[in-house]
Amino acid sequence: MRPYIHKDFLLSTPAARELYHRFGEGQPIFDFHCHLSPKEIREDQRFETITQVWLSGDHYKWRLMRANGVPEELITGDGDPYEKFLAWARTVEKSVGNPLYAWTHMELKNYFGVEELLSEKTAPAIWQACNEKLQEPGFSARGLIVQSNVKALCTTDDPVDSLEHHAALVADGSFPVQVLPAFRPETALHPEQANFRDWVGRLGQVTGKAIASLCDLEEALSQRAFYFKERGCLIADQSLQSPDFTAGTRQEAEAAFQKALSGEALSPAEQNAYQTQLLISLGRLYKKAGFVMQLHFGVLRNTNSRMFPLTGPDAGFDCVGDGVSAASMAALFDALDKTDELPPTVIYSLNACDDDKLASVLGAFQQGTFPQKMQLGAPWWFSDHKDGMVKMMKALANTGLLSGFIGMLTDSRSFLSYARHEYFRRVLCNLLGQWMEDGEIPQDYELVGPMVRDICYGNAAAYFGLGK
Amino acid sequence: MRPYIHKDFLLSTPAARELYHRFGEGQPIFDFHCHLSPKEIREDQRFETITQVWLSGDHYKWRLMRANGVPEELITGDGDPYEKFLAWARTVEKSVGNPLYAWTHMELKNYFGVEELLSEKTAPAIWQACNEKLQEPGFSARGLIVQSNVKALCTTDDPVDSLEHHAALVADGSFPVQVLPAFRPETALHPEQANFRDWVGRLGQVTGKAIASLCDLEEALSQRAFYFKERGCLIADQSLQSPDFTAGTRQEAEAAFQKALSGEALSPAEQNAYQTQLLISLGRLYKKAGFVMQLHFGVLRNTNSRMFPLTGPDAGFDCVGDGVSAASMAALFDALDKTDELPPTVIYSLNACDDDKLASVLGAFQQGTFPQKMQLGAPWWFSDHKDGMVKMMKALANTGLLSGFIGMLTDSRSFLSYARHEYFRRVLCNLLGQWMEDGEIPQDYELVGPMVRDICYGNAAAYFGLGK
Amino acid sequence: MRPYIHKDFLLSTPAARELYHRFGEGQPIFDFHCHLSPKEIREDQRFETITQVWLSGDHYKWRLMRANGVPEELITGDGDPYEKFLAWARTVEKSVGNPLYAWTHMELKNYFGVEELLSEKTAPAIWQACNEKLQEPGFSARGLIVQSNVKALCTTDDPVDSLEHHAALVADGSFPVQVLPAFRPETALHPEQANFRDWVGRLGQVTGKAIASLCDLEEALSQRAFYFKERGCLIADQSLQSPDFTAGTRQEAEAAFQKALSGEALSPAEQNAYQTQLLISLGRLYKKAGFVMQLHFGVLRNTNSRMFPLTGPDAGFDCVGDGVSAASMAALFDALDKTDELPPTVIYSLNACDDDKLASVLGAFQQGTFPQKMQLGAPWWFSDHKDGMVKMMKALANTGLLSGFIGMLTDSRSFLSYARHEYFRRVLCNLLGQWMEDGEIPQDYELVGPMVRDICYGNAAAYFGLGK
Repeated sequence: MRPYIHKDFLLSTPAARELYHRFGEGQPIFDFHCHLSPKEIREDQRFETITQVWLSGDHYKWRLMRANGVPEELITGDGDPYEKFLAWARTVEKSVGNPLYAWTHMELKNYFGVEELLSEKTAPAIWQACNEKLQEPGFSARGLIVQSNVKALCTTDDPVDSLEHHAALVADGSFPVQVLPAFRPETALHPEQANFRDWVGRLGQVTGKAIASLCDLEEALSQRAFYFKERGCLIADQSLQSPDFTAGTRQEAEAAFQKALSGEALSPAEQNAYQTQLLISLGRLYKKAGFVMQLHFGVLRNTNSRMFPLTGPDAGFDCVGDGVSAASMAALFDALDKTDELPPTVIYSLNACDDDKLASVLGAFQQGTFPQKMQLGAPWWFSDHKDGMVKMMKALANTGLLSGFIGMLTDSRSFLSYARHEYFRRVLCNLLGQWMEDGEIPQDYELVGPMVRDICYGNAAAYFGLGK
Repeated sequence: MRPYIHKDFLLSTPAARELYHRFGEGQPIFDFHCHLSPKEIREDQRFETITQVWLSGDHYKWRLMRANGVPEELITGDGDPYEKFLAWARTVEKSVGNPLYAWTHMELKNYFGVEELLSEKTAPAIWQACNEKLQEPGFSARGLIVQSNVKALCTTDDPVDSLEHHAALVADGSFPVQVLPAFRPETALHPEQANFRDWVGRLGQVTGKAIASLCDLEEALSQRAFYFKERGCLIADQSLQSPDFTAGTRQEAEAAFQKALSGEALSPAEQNAYQTQLLISLGRLYKKAGFVMQLHFGVLRNTNSRMFPLTGPDAGFDCVGDGVSAASMAALFDALDKTDELPPTVIYSLNACDDDKLASVLGAFQQGTFPQKMQLGAPWWFSDHKDGMVKMMKALANTGLLSGFIGMLTDSRSFLSYARHEYFRRVLCNLLGQWMEDGEIPQDYELVGPMVRDICYGNAAAYFGLGK
Repeated sequence: MRPYIHKDFLLSTPAARELYHRFGEGQPIFDFHCHLSPKEIREDQRFETITQVWLSGDHYKWRLMRANGVPEELITGDGDPYEKFLAWARTVEKSVGNPLYAWTHMELKNYFGVEELLSEKTAPAIWQACNEKLQEPGFSARGLIVQSNVKALCTTDDPVDSLEHHAALVADGSFPVQVLPAFRPETALHPEQANFRDWVGRLGQVTGKAIASLCDLEEALSQRAFYFKERGCLIADQSLQSPDFTAGTRQEAEAAFQKALSGEALSPAEQNAYQTQLLISLGRLYKKAGFVMQLHFGVLRNTNSRMFPLTGPDAGFDCVGDGVSAASMAALFDALDKTDELPPTVIYSLNACDDDKLASVLGAFQQGTFPQKMQLGAPWWFSDHKDGMVKMMKALANTGLLSGFIGMLTDSRSFLSYARHEYFRRVLCNLLGQWMEDGEIPQDYELVGPMVRDICYGNAAAYFGLGK
């Protein structure tokens, strides 16, 4: 029997195989949004066990283990590493049909040469084989990145961060992959979080001036954005639930900020006014700094209040939220565009029902000075699987120019997640190949092939201005 | 020409056929949610005509007949039984592409051996053939259930019900199929219904204590839940539109209840507070009683006020509503989970746009003590067709463990509806078989086959604790 | 290599090809909703260049050009016609996967005999070939319509319009295609538009009585509706965002109208009350006049305030809005139905997430006196592509009778858009053919073939009473 992961995995037609092997496979990776630790890259971290590199930070896997009845001790607790691996192996057996089933076996094959299916039965041998491999030279943090043909990556960084690790990597000069910071003033837009006031205080310290007004906050963020820019930053990021950008004045936003600074909770209307005004300021700042503005919508975070004190955030208790309104989205873009201060923007909604709607809103703010200025982002998180990718690419193709899509990113905390780029490229080529086979698009590799190449790498490099 | 319904109906690939015939086809049925009448089962009802057993209570068919311009006299009116059958036959001819087209012919084939397509032309012969069959011994209510390989079924019962028919079936002992009650305090949560006060009064009589407060109501429901439990109940059920579970206090709920008891209409906020608090109490009760909590969301009922006085409820004038909010759903689960009083729960939304969102919310409340504790239910009502099933199963597979899915139910009032289980099993095997053919999952029957078997029967039996 | 557009374009199976060539292809077109200019038809307009007939009014194309970074001068500006064509050719190369890629090449093939793919390279030769063709006799406005096998079409007309061009066409008698007016009191329902008061004034002048109350407005609209009816009108139309039809009294609507007449902006609640009451009046009027009521929902218009002063409306800055609520939709139908004043109705939502929901609401208002009275309309605008068509037809098939669907319309301003009917017919036959190949429906051309024929032409002709 052919192994599960083989060279034509997910490629159902001859056209798909030709597109992938001739145009997609060899492209380098520009992973423009991830959550890798710059410190771990700088220190070129090594891993003792597959549990450490694979299971220690991956809340996708944790969720499946919980669904399979695994006790928390073997998930985020202090259980034995092999027991944790075994619990994951048992869960994998039950996860047929989940994207993690594919990713797991792609990662085992690509990095460790393992072709068996992971299960309770095969777990002991795979545990040993992987742990041995991890001792080889190419299996450090940097080694795994280089193995994966990564040309550049953007981490996700707080404006108060010194970016010392990024600077050290540049100074060191030995690592051939560009590691760029990304500007994510997440807490600035979330006065509802417990750490808001502390964070504002720290930002004041870092910038050398106490923050007492919205203007102060904006000035401090601006100072830090240009600090980031000098260190290679090309992109800003933000995550929001489903804000209403159609209402709220500057005065209301200022009042809301004062209230938040004094530790009071904001009403939904105050929160909307605050987020709207601050995001408009940030958009203008990004335009000035030459950043791409990346916005993540529709996530409902930290829903499980019993687990939160035990695991903290980002531990698998977030959900797909209710999506973002078209009117709200259009209002934000228009507020920035009407003074020509709308930066190139990438939008992601965790609620895939928004795909068609958002693609159409983005289409109303394209303009002749910057091709493909407004981008629908790759499917995010819970939508990051074959169905979600096909849905998102069809939404873009049907209402815009798929050929200009900036493509995939890992959004990951793991050094093994580059398999997601390969998975995406296979799905992309399979979709285009199917269209070619069905005659929906011309059977012309000179037309379709470069499109594959661009979506895999070239579009993102051009869009973000990599290497400029 | 091969007949329309044949042994490989809906099975497009060799893998699909192998999965169905080897693993799915022979499994017994546990129909854990239906609307069969326990009285009719107890009395082992017989049917004079196919119209009586097929058309007399089926609002799915009624809707299609109305769409085809059939006058109400031949739908819910007192028209001649043969004329009604003929009107249905003419409608079937026009319903190519509708799931009823498939179900109709599956039922004709499976129970009556009819292979012709139903149409105006074939109606007279089919009418005669079916009516003759109905006089044979195996065509009583019980006979049809036994023919269908049903091992157990759960009816849907009001807490004020004495469950006398269930008791009689147990006492009688001659029927090999378990007929279990299900606890559905539907009216308790719907103060907007005209019968609310009467129903509260009846509940007070049945429990021997007048109900004057929310606490009284909860005590009475608790008493009845344990009464049901003693008679084999494993599951509770409820249908709701799109309530907001994020707001409302106990005090507001109590005030709303008093207002409803005095016959006043509740504001939306009052209704939300009341439903939230009562549903939290019920969830705790179900946890204590060991019931699974089943919740049906997103239905908009009785939209046609001209027809309501003529036909009453459940006559084909309900619709897909606007879906349920992620935040609301998460708030309900969290309210129960934070004190560890969240029972195993199955969620259905009539609005299939909710599938991905709800699957992700459920995933945030799984836990290590009860595998697959939180379940996304099978596609419901208007979504109960091949497209809806595939969509729902992909939503589950993409965000959780499809292998743990508790599978299909009929939700039906008809003794012929078990064909829906067969239809579902064929769709399930076709999906998995297609994945195998495309190499998306391993071509390994030892891995995928047991998954089919479990989804068809084993998972539900284990989840509800059948036979424990 | 086979040309991209060939006789079996989009027809993947033998059954699809048989259905299309035997039943679909030869049907005439009844284009019951378009935006062609009756003046241009009357004057039998001729076109100097392909730019004039193809690019001058098509905001679908404009959006793609903006996405491709084309400056506005070459889109809606006064750029050179050939430069505009070239900019479009460059954009087409980048639009693989977009429905415009298919439509473009269908139009080039069907009308101009061009088989090459349009690109920067082929643009000069195609420019010349098309412009030459346009000088031939059959390439006037009327010639293009006749070439396309159109039997009848409905334009979209303002109630204040004299319909002089329609009358002249009838008087002239030389044009074999019926050109019927359609009644679209768009501005009446949009007091938020700047031209509202002027328009009300013009309506008063046309009807000979100043409009000072809601009753006056309704009387004037009624007078004009019957004026239209005498000139062959069969259908009314309206576009709305996502109104709430569940609230608002006649008194509130009257007050809102007075406020709007005095130039004040309405609150959302006032706008809802006004739109609800006026739409109920209009529904009653349409029932009396024997019109079909066509409603377009879910569009968010004129989102780009920087471009609006430059391009005006309908220039590519509209978006998919947030959809319409099931409760709202049901409330409107019920308000009309309860007095039996609900006319035959066609509903379109620009937000395709509404498909299943709206199909189910429509199903609750079907009735025995008018087969297929309530219709889900063909996919509209941003949803008007293969995926959208398949999604919409599945929504209808799954919950109603696909066989009664009134089918496609162009909704276009261009005389070349009839290729969209062919595109639709191919998609329809491909869907049904696939179902036949997969055995989901019987492989019986006597059953499925007439269904194709009816959806292509017969159903619409019967539904609107064409030729009665």
